[in-house]
Amino acid sequence: MAHTNRQWILASRPKGLITPEVLQLRETAVPALEEGQALVRVKFLSIDPTMRVWMADRPQYMPPVQIGEVMRAFGVAEVLESRHPEFNRGDKIAGLTGLQEFALLTTKDLGAFHKIPSIPFLSDSHFLGTLGHNGFTAYFGLLEVGKPQSGETLVVSAAAGATGSIVGQLGKIHGCRVVGIAGTDEKCKWIRDELGFDAAINYKHADWKEQLAAATPKGVDIDFENVGGEIMQTVLDRMNLHGRVVLCGLISGYTKEDPAMASFGQVLIKRLRVEGFIILDYASKFMDAAKQLGMWKMTGKIKDKQTIVKGFEKAPEAINMLFNGTNIGKLLVEV
Amino acid sequence: MAHTNRQWILASRPKGLITPEVLQLRETAVPALEEGQALVRVKFLSIDPTMRVWMADRPQYMPPVQIGEVMRAFGVAEVLESRHPEFNRGDKIAGLTGLQEFALLTTKDLGAFHKIPSIPFLSDSHFLGTLGHNGFTAYFGLLEVGKPQSGETLVVSAAAGATGSIVGQLGKIHGCRVVGIAGTDEKCKWIRDELGFDAAINYKHADWKEQLAAATPKGVDIDFENVGGEIMQTVLDRMNLHGRVVLCGLISGYTKEDPAMASFGQVLIKRLRVEGFIILDYASKFMDAAKQLGMWKMTGKIKDKQTIVKGFEKAPEAINMLFNGTNIGKLLVEV
Repeated sequence: MAHTNRQWILASRPKGLITPEVLQLRETAVPALEEGQALVRVKFLSIDPTMRVWMADRPQYMPPVQIGEVMRAFGVAEVLESRHPEFNRGDKIAGLTGLQEFALLTTKDLGAFHKIPSIPFLSDSHFLGTLGHNGFTAYFGLLEVGKPQSGETLVVSAAAGATGSIVGQLGKIHGCRVVGIAGTDEKCKWIRDELGFDAAINYKHADWKEQLAAATPKGVDIDFENVGGEIMQTVLDRMNLHGRVVLCGLISGYTKEDPAMASFGQVLIKRLRVEGFIILDYASKFMDAAKQLGMWKMTGKIKDKQTIVKGFEKAPEAINMLFNGTNIGKLLVEV
Repeated sequence: MAHTNRQWILASRPKGLITPEVLQLRETAVPALEEGQALVRVKFLSIDPTMRVWMADRPQYMPPVQIGEVMRAFGVAEVLESRHPEFNRGDKIAGLTGLQEFALLTTKDLGAFHKIPSIPFLSDSHFLGTLGHNGFTAYFGLLEVGKPQSGETLVVSAAAGATGSIVGQLGKIHGCRVVGIAGTDEKCKWIRDELGFDAAINYKHADWKEQLAAATPKGVDIDFENVGGEIMQTVLDRMNLHGRVVLCGLISGYTKEDPAMASFGQVLIKRLRVEGFIILDYASKFMDAAKQLGMWKMTGKIKDKQTIVKGFEKAPEAINMLFNGTNIGKLLVEV
């Protein structure tokens, strides 16, 4: 029973946003299963800023996707058929499925996937967000790199995104004053009124820097930085002595030829610690984080929101939504 | 017996280098000693890049020098007369004397000065360099922030300066491969042939980036950064995963209106730790460092060189020598 697989192929490297030349749709027949393989059908695809980095031919934390390859992406999928001892028909997995409808898992891929449980009333898609890499990023970045102390002030950029929105809530759980920076009034309202941030600043307002100063009367102890460039610079200017910068992303530079620049001057005079951070370094502790995040989610201490784009063919548009600021919370494609 | 004091006063804030409008010479009578004061005659003045920062009206780690005040400077001096129980005539002290020929010490200044021993065959001026704040900066910056491991590669910028030249030698003592970056062939020859650096790169040569790559075949584990801007960016591009950047100075930006910019991109993807660092934070451990540095200096494990400008009136020219690259090793004015 042959399936037809649709795949988004990296056809050329993007200059800015994703254009029709960059990702091209390919249809192929799913080959017959060999011993040691499992066939999965992808249900949800995670749309993440890091995908734009993977498309670029520059040094990065994983090899860039090569031209002609299936675009790399996180997804959740269900096992349709298995000739692999670790997987059974009906198992659900999360991991690097790629931007495609079907994927073949082999033994060498095992590290890139993990089985996920079925939890009543909880969409599997959460294992790509709060209970997946976004939650882990927030958890390890804030707790292990930022080391929040009760009473400190935490600023989060891209605060209404999948990671930032969790970071702020974790900051509240740990007793911080939490200020979020986002790009629309709707996003600001959500993180302040629904998620419990102490303040939310829309950086598209002309007076946002004054608003940030007013919202951080005791300065900033931790910057959870997702954006870079001018936003980062402005937060650095508010940092206290011996503050910490959790450098998680620099999304403002991802669609540009030149990376977003900033001055290291404040790092020097304030004796800041800036640490680049990628969750791959914490893989051995993912299960601890998943349990803790799951408990907070079930008890309502962490809330989240999903923006779901329906239809596999809309994946390229969805990626662009990350960079024009139109999604709120976790962005997903439902296949 | 009244003395006439000559003082360099900050008359206006510099735009770039020091011009005659910036520092003006003032002569005043030294007032009669009051109870609790000591009068010292300054013998050597330390000329440091940080003086240019102190002159600028921008946020920094100490208050900027105010217009009309004596310019701040480190010096060594001898007590001429004392009505203070801690100081006796003939004592030698090192500390923030200011850019002047005489200074009055009072109880509130005590933290800014310490007595120095008289050591045969050793000029007191060394207590402004290897056995003073430059040595301490190298010692705590490299050992406590950089945490060098044997076999790692250390790159030092401004490597023929008072601090950088010691950093490199401490790196060799701790088993590192040490590569220095400096701005003349003479400086490069000195740090390589006399101080034992493994390689020295003149950043004014067109192919210096290729030379740096060739000199760091295993990448860079520690960047002891004194310069910032393009030099820092180039070293960041060579850093290994989980490398450390000891951010000690950003001299390339000190004479400019805009600070030197760089990208934080490498910090993110290489998961670097960048820490701003100022020796004030280690004051309680200065004596440990002084003993250790003194032993290394006496046994020839650390060598140094002084550039001594004779004549108090030449202090402004001396400051400019830091920024046009004409001094080698420790720059001092002999009063």
